[in-house]
Amino acid sequence: MLIRDATADDWAAIWPFFHQITAAGETFTFPVGLDRESGRGWWMLSAPNLTVVAVDDTGEILGTAKMNNNQHGNGAHVASASYMVDPAHGGRGVGRALVEHTLDRARAQGFRAMQFNAVAATNTHAVRLYERLGFRIVGTIPEGFHHPREGYVGLHVMHRPL
Amino acid sequence: MLIRDATADDWAAIWPFFHQITAAGETFTFPVGLDRESGRGWWMLSAPNLTVVAVDDTGEILGTAKMNNNQHGNGAHVASASYMVDPAHGGRGVGRALVEHTLDRARAQGFRAMQFNAVAATNTHAVRLYERLGFRIVGTIPEGFHHPREGYVGLHVMHRPL
Repeated sequence: MLIRDATADDWAAIWPFFHQITAAGETFTFPVGLDRESGRGWWMLSAPNLTVVAVDDTGEILGTAKMNNNQHGNGAHVASASYMVDPAHGGRGVGRALVEHTLDRARAQGFRAMQFNAVAATNTHAVRLYERLGFRIVGTIPEGFHHPREGYVGLHVMHRPL
Repeated sequence: MLIRDATADDWAAIWPFFHQITAAGETFTFPVGLDRESGRGWWMLSAPNLTVVAVDDTGEILGTAKMNNNQHGNGAHVASASYMVDPAHGGRGVGRALVEHTLDRARAQGFRAMQFNAVAATNTHAVRLYERLGFRIVGTIPEGFHHPREGYVGLHVMHRPL
């Protein structure tokens, strides 16, 4: 598996699983009805922010991450990031590799910490992965997320120093 | 004191204290060097988001607030808001009135809660006010804010149900 910066052309391969994940509405606080062009604006960031893709030996895209400063001005030293793994390629360590990559990139860019603002408490797979990688739950917004089947559930704020 | 929706023309009167407050960099995680036109984009929101002003009997603007959904999609039921009181008009209850107004407006718009993402721990006046008005600190990002004199200080996430 290789992780490289995304190019504009990658969106065609990201969109199908981006659409699958955002339309399901179970994990992200993105608009649920994003179409292909709106979705591009939400995911494909420009420098100094970044979007990367994880690809296999054949060049197929397995997952993607984006990273940006979480706040501006005197809060701009904390990064944030989001991750999507193509469900067809789950269980292969793609998510872990993407998180580790963004931690390295954030460190290289001089960020002092990484923060996730909105991790659905029901997304236990992600919460466990983040915790294994050094994040802790700083706090939980009660009923901050409206899961389509579970109803209102907590929304974690997670953080780790770099 | 009256609180009314801001009009585009109000920016001329908001800008001087908006500039004073953001340039000081002690409370907001906005870019520190915002100029007049960039600042307008950060503060003067369009429906369904809103920006209001508190005015006195002569029509002078004493302070202002903006309110928006804090997340999108399945997190869009939680509002967020920010407040600025002209330092020349501090101590008159303008901040409290603005917070109460946005709580009412958020409730009227169907939001289920209000959340502040980035309250500098050094901004004890605001923290106390928010707590008196029913907010609690959900968590604190360690060293999440770089205060120009105090150095790295905590950044609170605050929340109250509606």
